[in-house]
Amino acid sequence: MKIHHVGIAVESLESAVPVFAKLFGRAPRSEETVEEQKVRVAVFDLEGSRIELLEATTSDSPVGRFLAKRGQGVHHLTMTVPDISKAISELEASGIRAIDPQPRTGAGGERIVFLDPRTTSGVLIELVEEK
Amino acid sequence: MKIHHVGIAVESLESAVPVFAKLFGRAPRSEETVEEQKVRVAVFDLEGSRIELLEATTSDSPVGRFLAKRGQGVHHLTMTVPDISKAISELEASGIRAIDPQPRTGAGGERIVFLDPRTTSGVLIELVEEK
Repeated sequence: MKIHHVGIAVESLESAVPVFAKLFGRAPRSEETVEEQKVRVAVFDLEGSRIELLEATTSDSPVGRFLAKRGQGVHHLTMTVPDISKAISELEASGIRAIDPQPRTGAGGERIVFLDPRTTSGVLIELVEEK
Repeated sequence: MKIHHVGIAVESLESAVPVFAKLFGRAPRSEETVEEQKVRVAVFDLEGSRIELLEATTSDSPVGRFLAKRGQGVHHLTMTVPDISKAISELEASGIRAIDPQPRTGAGGERIVFLDPRTTSGVLIELVEEK
């Protein structure tokens, strides 16, 4: 299992992208809006993983509510699994629940699922199936 | 640049370690107390990186204050750099400040530095020099 990406909630991509571009020594690969999640996302490629900066397009969204409650910071951690359905059933057998009843299709076309943070020590963890 | 590890603040290693062991499908490599940081740390090896679970040994510590203010969740993100002194001077030239005046020696013997989150969009970022 490895880290696929780390999602960081920021107030403003306009402010945060130049900071992380300096930190990583490169421009983001892409900036796009993911309507379903009500976020604008800037993706930085790193060696073996990536960082996604997330700006809420509305305060009434998962990232908007996170920012209001906790401020800027890491919003979720995404892990790669070889078989997402198998992973979900194994985790559910040990008390870790998926939020979504079935895996769904993420912005990049991968099968993804978010785990209920009440069952993962408060950390929002996403699983993504290796393609 | 790559992700060296992700540090997650948890209320209790006793509760959190079994959860992450199920999630990652393995036991932690180690559990130890780092007196200087007033934390107990459980380290899980992943492919290319690792996850550190951090329990405060006292509420009057960086992780204890984080837990009181924000609750459980990702506390810091650690990136690997080839030359930490060079990285610090380049970052400081672009407005990203180190918290420590000089790099110091981490628990594993590496040279490390924490960056001031007021200059990194609120995210606590640690740099570690590749050995």
